[in-house]
Amino acid sequence: MASSLLRITTLSSPPTTGKPSLPAFSSKSAPLSFRFSPSRHRSVSLRGESFRLSCSVSDPPPHSLRRSRRPEYIPNRISDPNYVRVFDTTLRDGEQSPGATLTSKEKLDIARQLAKLGVDIIEAGFPAASKDDFEAVKTIAETVGNSVDENGYVPVICGLSRCNKKDIERAWEAVRYAKRPRIHTFIATSDIHLEYKLKKSKAQVIEIARNMVKFARSLGCEDVEFSPEDAGRSEREFLYEILGEVIKAGATTLNIPDTVGITLPSEFGQLIADLKANTPGIENVIISTHCQNDLGLSTANTLSGAHSGARQVEVTINGIGERAGNASLEEVVMAIKCRGDHVLGGLFTGIDTRHIVMTSKMVEEYTGMQTQPHKAIVGANAFAHESGIHQDGMLKHKGTYEIICPEEIGLERSHDAGIVLGKLSGRHALKGRLTELGYELDDEQLSTIFWRFKSVAEQKKRVTDADIIALVSDEVFQPEAVWKLVDIQITCGTLGLSTATVKLAGADGVEHVACSMGTGPVDSAYKAVNLIVKEPTTLLEYSMNSVTEGIDAIATTRVLIRGNNNYTSTNAITGEEVERTFSGTGAGMDIVVSSVKAYVGALNKMMDFKEKSPTKVPSQQKSKVLA
Amino acid sequence: MASSLLRITTLSSPPTTGKPSLPAFSSKSAPLSFRFSPSRHRSVSLRGESFRLSCSVSDPPPHSLRRSRRPEYIPNRISDPNYVRVFDTTLRDGEQSPGATLTSKEKLDIARQLAKLGVDIIEAGFPAASKDDFEAVKTIAETVGNSVDENGYVPVICGLSRCNKKDIERAWEAVRYAKRPRIHTFIATSDIHLEYKLKKSKAQVIEIARNMVKFARSLGCEDVEFSPEDAGRSEREFLYEILGEVIKAGATTLNIPDTVGITLPSEFGQLIADLKANTPGIENVIISTHCQNDLGLSTANTLSGAHSGARQVEVTINGIGERAGNASLEEVVMAIKCRGDHVLGGLFTGIDTRHIVMTSKMVEEYTGMQTQPHKAIVGANAFAHESGIHQDGMLKHKGTYEIICPEEIGLERSHDAGIVLGKLSGRHALKGRLTELGYELDDEQLSTIFWRFKSVAEQKKRVTDADIIALVSDEVFQPEAVWKLVDIQITCGTLGLSTATVKLAGADGVEHVACSMGTGPVDSAYKAVNLIVKEPTTLLEYSMNSVTEGIDAIATTRVLIRGNNNYTSTNAITGEEVERTFSGTGAGMDIVVSSVKAYVGALNKMMDFKEKSPTKVPSQQKSKVLA
Repeated sequence: MASSLLRITTLSSPPTTGKPSLPAFSSKSAPLSFRFSPSRHRSVSLRGESFRLSCSVSDPPPHSLRRSRRPEYIPNRISDPNYVRVFDTTLRDGEQSPGATLTSKEKLDIARQLAKLGVDIIEAGFPAASKDDFEAVKTIAETVGNSVDENGYVPVICGLSRCNKKDIERAWEAVRYAKRPRIHTFIATSDIHLEYKLKKSKAQVIEIARNMVKFARSLGCEDVEFSPEDAGRSEREFLYEILGEVIKAGATTLNIPDTVGITLPSEFGQLIADLKANTPGIENVIISTHCQNDLGLSTANTLSGAHSGARQVEVTINGIGERAGNASLEEVVMAIKCRGDHVLGGLFTGIDTRHIVMTSKMVEEYTGMQTQPHKAIVGANAFAHESGIHQDGMLKHKGTYEIICPEEIGLERSHDAGIVLGKLSGRHALKGRLTELGYELDDEQLSTIFWRFKSVAEQKKRVTDADIIALVSDEVFQPEAVWKLVDIQITCGTLGLSTATVKLAGADGVEHVACSMGTGPVDSAYKAVNLIVKEPTTLLEYSMNSVTEGIDAIATTRVLIRGNNNYTSTNAITGEEVERTFSGTGAGMDIVVSSVKAYVGALNKMMDFKEKSPTKVPSQQKSKVLA
Repeated sequence: MASSLLRITTLSSPPTTGKPSLPAFSSKSAPLSFRFSPSRHRSVSLRGESFRLSCSVSDPPPHSLRRSRRPEYIPNRISDPNYVRVFDTTLRDGEQSPGATLTSKEKLDIARQLAKLGVDIIEAGFPAASKDDFEAVKTIAETVGNSVDENGYVPVICGLSRCNKKDIERAWEAVRYAKRPRIHTFIATSDIHLEYKLKKSKAQVIEIARNMVKFARSLGCEDVEFSPEDAGRSEREFLYEILGEVIKAGATTLNIPDTVGITLPSEFGQLIADLKANTPGIENVIISTHCQNDLGLSTANTLSGAHSGARQVEVTINGIGERAGNASLEEVVMAIKCRGDHVLGGLFTGIDTRHIVMTSKMVEEYTGMQTQPHKAIVGANAFAHESGIHQDGMLKHKGTYEIICPEEIGLERSHDAGIVLGKLSGRHALKGRLTELGYELDDEQLSTIFWRFKSVAEQKKRVTDADIIALVSDEVFQPEAVWKLVDIQITCGTLGLSTATVKLAGADGVEHVACSMGTGPVDSAYKAVNLIVKEPTTLLEYSMNSVTEGIDAIATTRVLIRGNNNYTSTNAITGEEVERTFSGTGAGMDIVVSSVKAYVGALNKMMDFKEKSPTKVPSQQKSKVLA
């Protein structure tokens, strides 16, 4: 199974603590500063404040640093008042980004990776959206939701549902097999949403919310989260009332979404503080934040909410999500890690930050939502400076411009990533390097990768880690093949008509050949593929990146297609039927070949989805008969 | 001149006000709410707060909205206490992003566009970095810095300099021809920078800062900005002291950089408030913010600084810059526009937000720093939702999920961008559409574009705006050609060796032909180009995107190269010599052809830079003899 491939074998210590494993700022038990010690290059004392400067990941933490542990999980209570739960909604809210559709296998891979990160809650999807979504959540609940580690950690698996019985039953069916299942239900509470989306009165909305939370509890679910959608624009008094009612009905977490991303940090913090001060019974539940990023303020708003008393933060990897996305897990977590003690009164999370980079890359690859080079924490440039020629000694101290050690988030510096293998390297060397990189392949998979590795090494002097990872992704992280590219031949340029001949093998092993002309090599090749596959599609996006430096680098192509015969699913928030889109990737040194592989991959993914025909569910408006 | 091409003819009203031209929240003179009026769909009253919901750009603003004007420019004073100056440093700090190197022509194009946006100050570069940088700043000062519009607006042109006489003289030489020239000088003030970078005492640093501000004023420059680098980590008392001294020496703006992006919004706001309260003479100067984005908090920090009294904000388009970049102009400006009245005590800027999208695209294209799809305000998805099939009336009201009108930032909705031209369209129709899109081409340029347009239209049923823009960029926004691609012929695929034959014409018109094999079509073509050009390079990045939907779309390729024979420039902040990198773009329906065009473009840019050989300047450390 590809899903079990990613294993970070180089990280062997247990991921149990959210406190920096490296010295950072002042800790609570040592409230002042570390003295700066030139021989260790770690922190500097500035008038009672201390800043991390630079560090080495292999050093043990100093004794003065209290290592706080993740408290035992109880749905509505956290024993440590400073612990902030991390609720990752990459698989639900993140997957709703246009074009970010994930297959069940990809979702499971990401869920496993999120468990390595140590997120407290994984929102695995919206089970009522389609049969495919339901199955993905169920599989994650059954597997990741039951993998308890040696410290007793296992993530809560959460399913989203609108406030109606069908959705909630469906969510419960999907998550109930997890060791710690949670149902998350929501209904809008702002005047504009009540008037235009729900067409209901406040009294009606309270009635629905109360009944549906009760209903969720009545199914046997002891962990129920409720969200008043568009809370950022909702009337305060109404929020106090509805939240008080759902607490009485049995909700254990109250999530406060700034659905349209309109609040400034001071406002959002005030909202959380007001809710904490005025909602009856709020002391018995956990308050959560969910901040959209429309004005670029989601991270700041999330931190402001936590500072005001929220003890769960809803985030996504790389900050993906609809429109401008959500608060980024990596930004929120690293801000709390860097500044929690100093500025946020001692807040900490249970995230093992050394898995951030690998998780970010996986989500980037699977969703196709590429982070910009200047994305904080995980962008390609986040730790890069313009390369200096004359290191005149002035900048020997990394801390002059670096506040986080790359190693702390699992990033090798590019000059360390180095050259690892050449064409004389054998199967054993390749396997060793793959293991070091966290991949565990079976013999057949290793064999395939090895032959591709050899053919790359024949043509390219230095095969880097990035090359190898691209090959693994290309070979192993592919959907079940319906069609497979056998051969292709292309002629193109400015002097004649582009022509492609393509040979594909079907699931039955029969080979089909077709040729076509086109406006360029990719166009002609795709047209030839279409002649064989006969599945009408629209190409929505096409992009390519070289994975390593050099003209002879491996390039990865990504395409996004939409089937012209509808493949649909239900959007949780709007209740609309939406057309699914499918992405495919291909890697290789010939960009035309990798482009065709990417296209065939996307077609395979689409046909795989088609076979699991979607379940139609009524939209919120239609399902008016509630309890 | 390509530099005068971009003209937004569809925007005819004068860009004089920073107040929303559309109803937004409560204004100061009408402090409560607009009543919601279903027939206009504009704003809704929620307990005394009002939010913009949706709007039409053609409606006139309501009378209740005070339209504030940009106050007259006086270096150290702003007559309207709520006006926030926007200082754009895309051309200086943004251009320092790895790989974002801009040519002089590109810088001039961007400067003109920034003037259209109405930024108050353009930091045009670091004149001491190289001869090329100096010339670019000087040209911008002479042209953009003298283009006064009908309202008397002309941007201040600012040049950066380290705290030494040579840098300051060089900066003055570059900016002095502008109508409003400014010198911006800086020196680090944090303990760690003093110890490791400057190796100077506090007293020495104060002495240097005071003398160099005096020196800048003595040259005749009446507008001098001073930045204590790494202020976010500097000792407060030392900041009060050094800032008090530079005020006495004649500084008119004090910029407070969070150089390493380590502060949280509450901290940064407090820093500004403390400086305002404790620095002697601060009431006679403008306080400015400069927030790096290492923790994803730059926008929030900037707003917090403004809320605490800063009246200049330093920002870049798309938030580009070293590491995680700077605060984004578009995020800061739109947050102030949306929430300035309601949350920030009435703050406003002079930015004409309708130019945001065009400026963002230009910077993206020229720097090659692509924004992520979920980038706030300007990302591809920022206004996109998953496409709904069944619009069941529930979401007729855009305001349910949209807080900014796309039109307000100059964005056409994709379904409005539509199909404009086909293969029967004539030259007149193309010219008309180009004018509508803001491009003003001379006859020769139009002719070139027209023939390319025809050849696209022959092969593609529907030619969209995005296609046309890609063609214009490809033809017009190119560096001076040394080499030009004449013809190319490629064979590739899985069945044989990739082979490319390339014909290039040199500056002298002589044609050269070469062929080469390679690992793929691009590799073989680039090797063939190298055989002709004979300029050794390393390919650092290679990427490609289709600009429109459909398999027959135009794809844009971008490459980033570094010459193996050093092309260097001086980094202002670190004082290091850095290797310049050069980007090139190419567009076309054949991805191999566009890839080769991009490579030849980058080579041309590199050779253009080589001809203007850089001036070596001493680094700060070496030039110890000051005044």
